[in-house]
Amino acid sequence: MLGYAFMGKAHAHAYRTLSHMMWPPPLVPELIAISGRDADKVAAAATRYGFATSATDWRDVVTDERVGLFDNSGPNHLHAEPTIAAARAGKHVVCEKPLGRNADEAYETWQAVGDAGVQHLCAFNYRFVPAVRLAREIIASGDLGEIHHFRGSYLQDWGAADIDAWRFDQSLAGSGALGDLGAHVIDLARYLVGEIADVAGHLATFWPERTVDDAFEAAVRFANGASGTLEASRFATGRKNSLRWEVNGSKGSIAFDLERLNELEVHYADSRPGERAQGFRRVLVTEADHPFIANWWPPGHIIGWEHTFVHELHHLMRAIAGQGSVTPDGADFRDGYRAAEVCDAIVSSSATGERVTVSYRD
Amino acid sequence: MLGYAFMGKAHAHAYRTLSHMMWPPPLVPELIAISGRDADKVAAAATRYGFATSATDWRDVVTDERVGLFDNSGPNHLHAEPTIAAARAGKHVVCEKPLGRNADEAYETWQAVGDAGVQHLCAFNYRFVPAVRLAREIIASGDLGEIHHFRGSYLQDWGAADIDAWRFDQSLAGSGALGDLGAHVIDLARYLVGEIADVAGHLATFWPERTVDDAFEAAVRFANGASGTLEASRFATGRKNSLRWEVNGSKGSIAFDLERLNELEVHYADSRPGERAQGFRRVLVTEADHPFIANWWPPGHIIGWEHTFVHELHHLMRAIAGQGSVTPDGADFRDGYRAAEVCDAIVSSSATGERVTVSYRD
Amino acid sequence: MLGYAFMGKAHAHAYRTLSHMMWPPPLVPELIAISGRDADKVAAAATRYGFATSATDWRDVVTDERVGLFDNSGPNHLHAEPTIAAARAGKHVVCEKPLGRNADEAYETWQAVGDAGVQHLCAFNYRFVPAVRLAREIIASGDLGEIHHFRGSYLQDWGAADIDAWRFDQSLAGSGALGDLGAHVIDLARYLVGEIADVAGHLATFWPERTVDDAFEAAVRFANGASGTLEASRFATGRKNSLRWEVNGSKGSIAFDLERLNELEVHYADSRPGERAQGFRRVLVTEADHPFIANWWPPGHIIGWEHTFVHELHHLMRAIAGQGSVTPDGADFRDGYRAAEVCDAIVSSSATGERVTVSYRD
Amino acid sequence: MLGYAFMGKAHAHAYRTLSHMMWPPPLVPELIAISGRDADKVAAAATRYGFATSATDWRDVVTDERVGLFDNSGPNHLHAEPTIAAARAGKHVVCEKPLGRNADEAYETWQAVGDAGVQHLCAFNYRFVPAVRLAREIIASGDLGEIHHFRGSYLQDWGAADIDAWRFDQSLAGSGALGDLGAHVIDLARYLVGEIADVAGHLATFWPERTVDDAFEAAVRFANGASGTLEASRFATGRKNSLRWEVNGSKGSIAFDLERLNELEVHYADSRPGERAQGFRRVLVTEADHPFIANWWPPGHIIGWEHTFVHELHHLMRAIAGQGSVTPDGADFRDGYRAAEVCDAIVSSSATGERVTVSYRD
Repeated sequence: MLGYAFMGKAHAHAYRTLSHMMWPPPLVPELIAISGRDADKVAAAATRYGFATSATDWRDVVTDERVGLFDNSGPNHLHAEPTIAAARAGKHVVCEKPLGRNADEAYETWQAVGDAGVQHLCAFNYRFVPAVRLAREIIASGDLGEIHHFRGSYLQDWGAADIDAWRFDQSLAGSGALGDLGAHVIDLARYLVGEIADVAGHLATFWPERTVDDAFEAAVRFANGASGTLEASRFATGRKNSLRWEVNGSKGSIAFDLERLNELEVHYADSRPGERAQGFRRVLVTEADHPFIANWWPPGHIIGWEHTFVHELHHLMRAIAGQGSVTPDGADFRDGYRAAEVCDAIVSSSATGERVTVSYRD
Repeated sequence: MLGYAFMGKAHAHAYRTLSHMMWPPPLVPELIAISGRDADKVAAAATRYGFATSATDWRDVVTDERVGLFDNSGPNHLHAEPTIAAARAGKHVVCEKPLGRNADEAYETWQAVGDAGVQHLCAFNYRFVPAVRLAREIIASGDLGEIHHFRGSYLQDWGAADIDAWRFDQSLAGSGALGDLGAHVIDLARYLVGEIADVAGHLATFWPERTVDDAFEAAVRFANGASGTLEASRFATGRKNSLRWEVNGSKGSIAFDLERLNELEVHYADSRPGERAQGFRRVLVTEADHPFIANWWPPGHIIGWEHTFVHELHHLMRAIAGQGSVTPDGADFRDGYRAAEVCDAIVSSSATGERVTVSYRD
Repeated sequence: MLGYAFMGKAHAHAYRTLSHMMWPPPLVPELIAISGRDADKVAAAATRYGFATSATDWRDVVTDERVGLFDNSGPNHLHAEPTIAAARAGKHVVCEKPLGRNADEAYETWQAVGDAGVQHLCAFNYRFVPAVRLAREIIASGDLGEIHHFRGSYLQDWGAADIDAWRFDQSLAGSGALGDLGAHVIDLARYLVGEIADVAGHLATFWPERTVDDAFEAAVRFANGASGTLEASRFATGRKNSLRWEVNGSKGSIAFDLERLNELEVHYADSRPGERAQGFRRVLVTEADHPFIANWWPPGHIIGWEHTFVHELHHLMRAIAGQGSVTPDGADFRDGYRAAEVCDAIVSSSATGERVTVSYRD
Repeated sequence: MLGYAFMGKAHAHAYRTLSHMMWPPPLVPELIAISGRDADKVAAAATRYGFATSATDWRDVVTDERVGLFDNSGPNHLHAEPTIAAARAGKHVVCEKPLGRNADEAYETWQAVGDAGVQHLCAFNYRFVPAVRLAREIIASGDLGEIHHFRGSYLQDWGAADIDAWRFDQSLAGSGALGDLGAHVIDLARYLVGEIADVAGHLATFWPERTVDDAFEAAVRFANGASGTLEASRFATGRKNSLRWEVNGSKGSIAFDLERLNELEVHYADSRPGERAQGFRRVLVTEADHPFIANWWPPGHIIGWEHTFVHELHHLMRAIAGQGSVTPDGADFRDGYRAAEVCDAIVSSSATGERVTVSYRD
């Protein structure tokens, strides 16, 4: 693993928990080595999270013969090079989003890793929220009919603080709210509705001294004719982690808010003939026939945000063990690249004032 | 009055109710005459709603000497001519939104009526929701700090039905969801945050045979630097009358949904030092110190949508009686025109693919 | 009418509005006379609300030959005598709840009025909330299956203030939260689930100097085997007018809160075979096929608390016009009496510490 | 550990996770042995959950020299004897609720274990929900003023199914919804408000063949003068795991629902002078200054139900390590006994029809 901060803690927890919950596991992870710049801190993290060793140079981890999977939970500017190096060393790879600081970097990473022939997963972990997976299954079943709208926003409110410095530096982060939060919205839009055809919008920076965006807004059209908005902000006071989206189809609608990740609001226009009690249902996604839930608790016992990684990395274990493929339920590096291409299109639209048709490389 | 359908019924109710509730009234309305195309139906409406007479030609109403106020609750293509005629006949005028089928028509109406020197009100009734007025007062007080975001959408779901035919005909309606629903969102954006500087977006028509839009989406920037999205749709299945908006400021946020028009969600980032129980408050806007409420009931007894018109027309009575002015709390025809200018800018952006700077005529 | 305060204002508004909305009306009310103790205030109320005359002695109203319906919106200690006198003078009567200050007074009122052969309605107006009526229809249809639970509470928070003095005086009010708020809960329990068989509970008075209860709590059993709780309080800080109830049946559940009176939460356990998106639906009770709504607005346009009286008094007009009966959809004085009997049983249980079987007189 | 079903899985997970999250841990648990009746199943559980050995006789675990803490996650009829035996063997003990099948059994367990001088914790895990702990701290601070009301209910809906057979057998379970769910409500009532003085209520069994209650209802009074209701049911269709409670004080109120365990609704009557935006705040209990949260994730990233046990068993580790005491933040066996005494009082009131003053043994 590279990185022992927020994401490192979350991924490490998932590796330790997945065989406890999702039994029998396709593979039982062993935590071999973790790398980070600060020798003391990374050694402490290794102790706390149960890694056998720690290193200050990610190259030592990448080339470690005992390592079968390289988990890149580091900052954005350390996504491409270590991940490519690991893949070229024959390791399977998982990389946090955004895959690259821009579409070119993401594309190169995808190409290099794809050529290496290893399994690759881009950590769009919200695909592994049970409610999100259920939504995808409902949409795929046709129960919502033809999809007309997607409106998605990812709102947080810590942008006025001076924490997490690398996230505010363009050379390290690539972009601000767009790549950090918007990438999740874009990935879910693609996962739930389909490819994004064009975008028109703008970035906004509320603190002039910043080199990254604090927010973005975009009007978008999908290849299948659906229409909607995408947004992310670090200046939405009172919204802590509100990744909200709503899908409207000709036969029904679904709405979600990550702050209530165990719930899905579902409306069917034609539930039962003659039934007058129609409306959005608050579905507690904790039933045994809901995605992932059979591994957990009885109905009504909610699971935490951290378990999206348990599902995600279990999913990757299965792919590595030859029991399934990363896509379409997980995001691979092609998905990571495509999200970056949409991000770049929004940057371009912001700069030029023109609607941008998103063009994807193969 | 012109029109006895949905809006005519609502306005007539308000004229009858306002002196009951808002006592003493500045003026006590008398319902003189109502006009509409169908002689039998308009006569029946006169009886039901308490008008002294009915007419099939609006010109008979406009020139009636007993009439002091002309209320145009008719369809969009009958907004300009009768309203201008009434003003030129010295009547005060209230006209339903959108003021015109496009910015030119709205501008001409505003200019002609303004020149006539009468009171004019554009019926953006949602300015008269107690919760909306409270929001404006909170924003104006500075309690939200600097405003960074406005996201507004007006979602309904009856677009798949073939009702209300004139609303789907461009020559009669001007536009679809944009002018019908979007105009409300735009007016509230202006009322709460300020003038809109530029827009980038598109219209969408899901039923190809239609000549008006079923939905629109736009990314917008405000003159004061705020950033956001505007949207309206008649294809948001399960959303019945959901005019939702959220304002994020540096010190707090406010959210609203017309389906719960007696509520306001308010978040203050700095409510009380050391207080750990922070979050969006569900404010039931039914307290005696809330706008309009002293006229109604004790706390917790909610009022209906129809009473927005009671407040609005009472406000107009006051202006006519010389007790105040229509603006800034109400919308006058200048406001009606400015909303139309934003609508036109969205149409233009949709057609050209370019971000459009909104240019307002004086 | 007797009384020009809160209830008088609400009833008067309803008489003026009902023919506007519910067309054609069975009868068109004329507001003849209103009585109250203070000559100036009652004269002002007559002017404001549109009564032809006012009086300081209710006897003048009760015997007025022009009066066909006597509306008792006065305080509790003036419920029995004027109402009985009016009925004996051949007037139809509507009386605010509680019908009497105790079961004996309520029984005598019912008996006397029943003997007079006039129409009588006890103003349990919440039976006329569209959502409540819809709930009753759903329960009656069997869609919830066998009913197991009812839990109802009516919570307000103004009890710490010294307003509304007669409500805190036992000789004038009879009881406190029990008769004022609890009576509504009890009536809805009866309306939705059926007769209450026994009660065990207590009253609570938080301000020692008061002679009425500030709250009560009771565990109850219904004649049909259902089980539940009843509660009311004027000390539930932050709850403004929260009449909440929930019904659980073997096949579904319904929940309601008067603070959101246009909504009903409905859960069906067996909505559609194989459907995984189960949960409580937020039903916006504003559809044309919902009770009362065809008289009002398009979907999503909510109505206010005051319109419960429009529905209620229209219902009474129909009964007077021979177009239907007050019961079972409305509450008559027998219902008013039965609610009082349950109130008395709770008082008795509080005093004796024993569970009390409610015994109803015929 | 005794038991490898629902509770065993949850406790085992917590032991494995607590040092990962709550660093540095006072003690690092080692999973020595797990016992259960079925040799194959318990062996499989040992493998899955990481216990070194398994046993079919709990006596082998209780006397195992390597064991320092005995965790009783077994069914109710196996709470007393193994727990007492473990304590007498010098092991610290944690026992699932209810501590005993009735107050006598619970009392004997408490006495025996107390005499043994070991640490003892009764697994009322909802004390370790961050939102519940925050509520307690707010109440203790006096910010709600004098407490007037507590209404608590624990609603589930699986009672119509024939699963979990031991829970429906009085000899094994002691009681039904009362001991299983009601015990949690009672413990939280005591934790948040104080000792319960008297109860009046009844049990209900909807399926005649059952020997345990399906539901109970009670009106209660607290020693400090507060008044409220307690309820539990397994027949509340659509309610999956809804442990809801509300506390009303003279200066504010708090409400909670376990189905949204990361949220707390808090109302302050006097938040800021002149502030008109008052109402219940939806507090997302995920801030660094909220209880337990500093161990987890950034704001808005919710945690799961399973982590109540992480907090609870970490708390016990601290007590064992001499860094604090089980009470008052955790529940010890005295608390377990007192909850059982309240349960017995409800059973007695149900049988006799009389209000029962709860009498606690020391």
